[in-house]
Amino acid sequence: MALIVQKFGGSSVADANRIFNVAKIVTDTYQAGNEVVVVLSAQGDTTDDLIAKSQEINPAASKRELDMLLSTGEQISIALVAMAIEKMGFPVISLTGWQVGMTTNSTYSSARIRKIDGSRVRKELDKKRIVLVAGFQGINQLGDITTLGRGGSDTTAVALAIGLGADVCQIYTDVDGVYTADPRKEPGAQKLKEITYDEMLELASLGAQVLHNRSVEMGKRYEVPIEVLSSFSRKPGTVVKEVANIEGLHISGVAQDSNIVQVTLQALDKGPNAFSNLLSLMAKHKLVADMVSLWESSPGESNVAFTIPQQALDLCLELLEHNQEQLGYRSLQVNDGFSKVSVVGAGMAENPEVGAQMFQALYQAHIQTHQVVSSEIKISVLVNKEDGDRAVHVIHERFLGLSFL
Amino acid sequence: MALIVQKFGGSSVADANRIFNVAKIVTDTYQAGNEVVVVLSAQGDTTDDLIAKSQEINPAASKRELDMLLSTGEQISIALVAMAIEKMGFPVISLTGWQVGMTTNSTYSSARIRKIDGSRVRKELDKKRIVLVAGFQGINQLGDITTLGRGGSDTTAVALAIGLGADVCQIYTDVDGVYTADPRKEPGAQKLKEITYDEMLELASLGAQVLHNRSVEMGKRYEVPIEVLSSFSRKPGTVVKEVANIEGLHISGVAQDSNIVQVTLQALDKGPNAFSNLLSLMAKHKLVADMVSLWESSPGESNVAFTIPQQALDLCLELLEHNQEQLGYRSLQVNDGFSKVSVVGAGMAENPEVGAQMFQALYQAHIQTHQVVSSEIKISVLVNKEDGDRAVHVIHERFLGLSFL
Repeated sequence: MALIVQKFGGSSVADANRIFNVAKIVTDTYQAGNEVVVVLSAQGDTTDDLIAKSQEINPAASKRELDMLLSTGEQISIALVAMAIEKMGFPVISLTGWQVGMTTNSTYSSARIRKIDGSRVRKELDKKRIVLVAGFQGINQLGDITTLGRGGSDTTAVALAIGLGADVCQIYTDVDGVYTADPRKEPGAQKLKEITYDEMLELASLGAQVLHNRSVEMGKRYEVPIEVLSSFSRKPGTVVKEVANIEGLHISGVAQDSNIVQVTLQALDKGPNAFSNLLSLMAKHKLVADMVSLWESSPGESNVAFTIPQQALDLCLELLEHNQEQLGYRSLQVNDGFSKVSVVGAGMAENPEVGAQMFQALYQAHIQTHQVVSSEIKISVLVNKEDGDRAVHVIHERFLGLSFL
Repeated sequence: MALIVQKFGGSSVADANRIFNVAKIVTDTYQAGNEVVVVLSAQGDTTDDLIAKSQEINPAASKRELDMLLSTGEQISIALVAMAIEKMGFPVISLTGWQVGMTTNSTYSSARIRKIDGSRVRKELDKKRIVLVAGFQGINQLGDITTLGRGGSDTTAVALAIGLGADVCQIYTDVDGVYTADPRKEPGAQKLKEITYDEMLELASLGAQVLHNRSVEMGKRYEVPIEVLSSFSRKPGTVVKEVANIEGLHISGVAQDSNIVQVTLQALDKGPNAFSNLLSLMAKHKLVADMVSLWESSPGESNVAFTIPQQALDLCLELLEHNQEQLGYRSLQVNDGFSKVSVVGAGMAENPEVGAQMFQALYQAHIQTHQVVSSEIKISVLVNKEDGDRAVHVIHERFLGLSFL
């Protein structure tokens, strides 16, 4: 007997049919002799509908009242799924965020979980009940409802799994696992059986949005295995865990992000200090730079290049131009014609062959690389946007074709 | 400065326009220097929509989960109205049933209020905030959400008014007060300035559904004045209080209920004991008989007649037929051709003229009366259904035309 936390997203509970599909998965798990705790998101478009209602009345509504409003969405889901499970003849109870003691700080709309008092859930499990929990929501010290922000239900699920000491946290999504490349574009993409938390984090930051970073980071810190799987296919998914059983597999995926721009600052004349000023200035404004490179262009002068998400460009340029004197650069260049293509793999550090094979594949396909940055488990290159899909393909082909995959 | 509790029903908050109308009434009351606590129902058809969703999934869903589901409706209302009041620039906070400590028993879907811990509301009022409270809902000793059943938001409002020691509880509805007769049918109907709790209870039981009995009973027991008024007209309404300033007015209203059937049991041969058996049998099955009359038809034999709501007839007949031997009656007769017309007035007991005038009016209009029952503050007669409206009219005319009205 295991204790399993299962999380289903909004599309999995969008209508009565899908709700019964979820109820079937849950009760099958229960009938197999497991204790089951289920975290649910709001149905389909419920959250958007509620936001539209609030926008009509007051686009500048306080976040406290917004949380009061939005938290009803998940409450509706847990009640409806409970009714479906009752109909199937199984013992079940639904609980809101405050009922399970999901205590958060008071940052309304993007609250952080402080602690979980799992006693109510434990009590209900001991009564042999399936326990449904409203995702995305908590309660602060004032006794007010908070919400956890984007990906909040994943976070709820992993936090509950940690708090209850669950054996695994299953995140049901509309994909059936984590792939070596985007399966919609890359026919040869393979589903991974296992992947490490760090690899998952790198893949997520590269636009392969399967799990939200917060939940992966929590899983990593408390060592709770997270399984990503589909509520439609009912096949085993991909398990995210500390040490993945990679069996000779050195890369876990190839990903592409086209939604970036490269910014280059030429001739920083104030040395390394200018560079650290730049980074802290950007951090202060929550601008996350990726692929940061610094190189000496001439004695005493450096160039810096980095990528940022497209939508952050305006803010970034305003900042840089406003601080040109302080930062001490001569000119600034923006290039939005690049895609970022990355290879991720925990086995990469010990195997320089990966990088070599990657660049050989790109070279043979006549794909130009404009910038390269590598870390322990990732190599990212900038290629021309029109080469992006082809770059993913040739790299993926190369590794699938090699014996060490 | 007064402490005022205001309650708005679902139609008053059905859309953004109406929500701002409510916000205007509330903030006007606040600006006049009052402390304001506002109880809200679910928007328009929200509750019906949620019930439809649950019916689709499980028509036999547990009441506990139904309460979990339905309580979201009022939570949506309080958040949206709070946003409207924020937009108008006033300090405001919304609170759910559990946040205001509305403790009930565990009879899900028709819970009874046990006690109110008003400390959170008091704290928010002391911060000069307008406090919005979700009606219809509470929390039981298990920490689970309950709902109060029909008319629950009125009950919430009166209970809060009692718990907070409010000066008045204003119930905003789609009518602007209590009338001497149904104003849609009787052009001469007059709005009452004041009415006693007992009169209000009699009128409510006669189909003049302005306030729910539970809230009137609570108001009476704890002597909280309840004002019934319209959220559209913004005119003073009718105040329900212990001693109404009737200024010579002996009747407070004429009402009609056509949704009844008369049941007659002939020749109960077991004397008064059979009668009490009958009443306790009906009470056990929550059948409320009205206009109960018992008369001796021949020595040692009695007849009993009473009215019950139309929809209770099947259950009633089943009970009576199943217990014919125990009750000891010979035959049973059902008549669904009658309407119940009643005159209510606290001043009636000391003024026999009321009854006399009533029967004279009916006689002169050639309206036959089939049964009559009178109490301290009410006289009810059964007339043929087709005479119902006319009966209300001639009685109403008569009293309006008399000097003592």
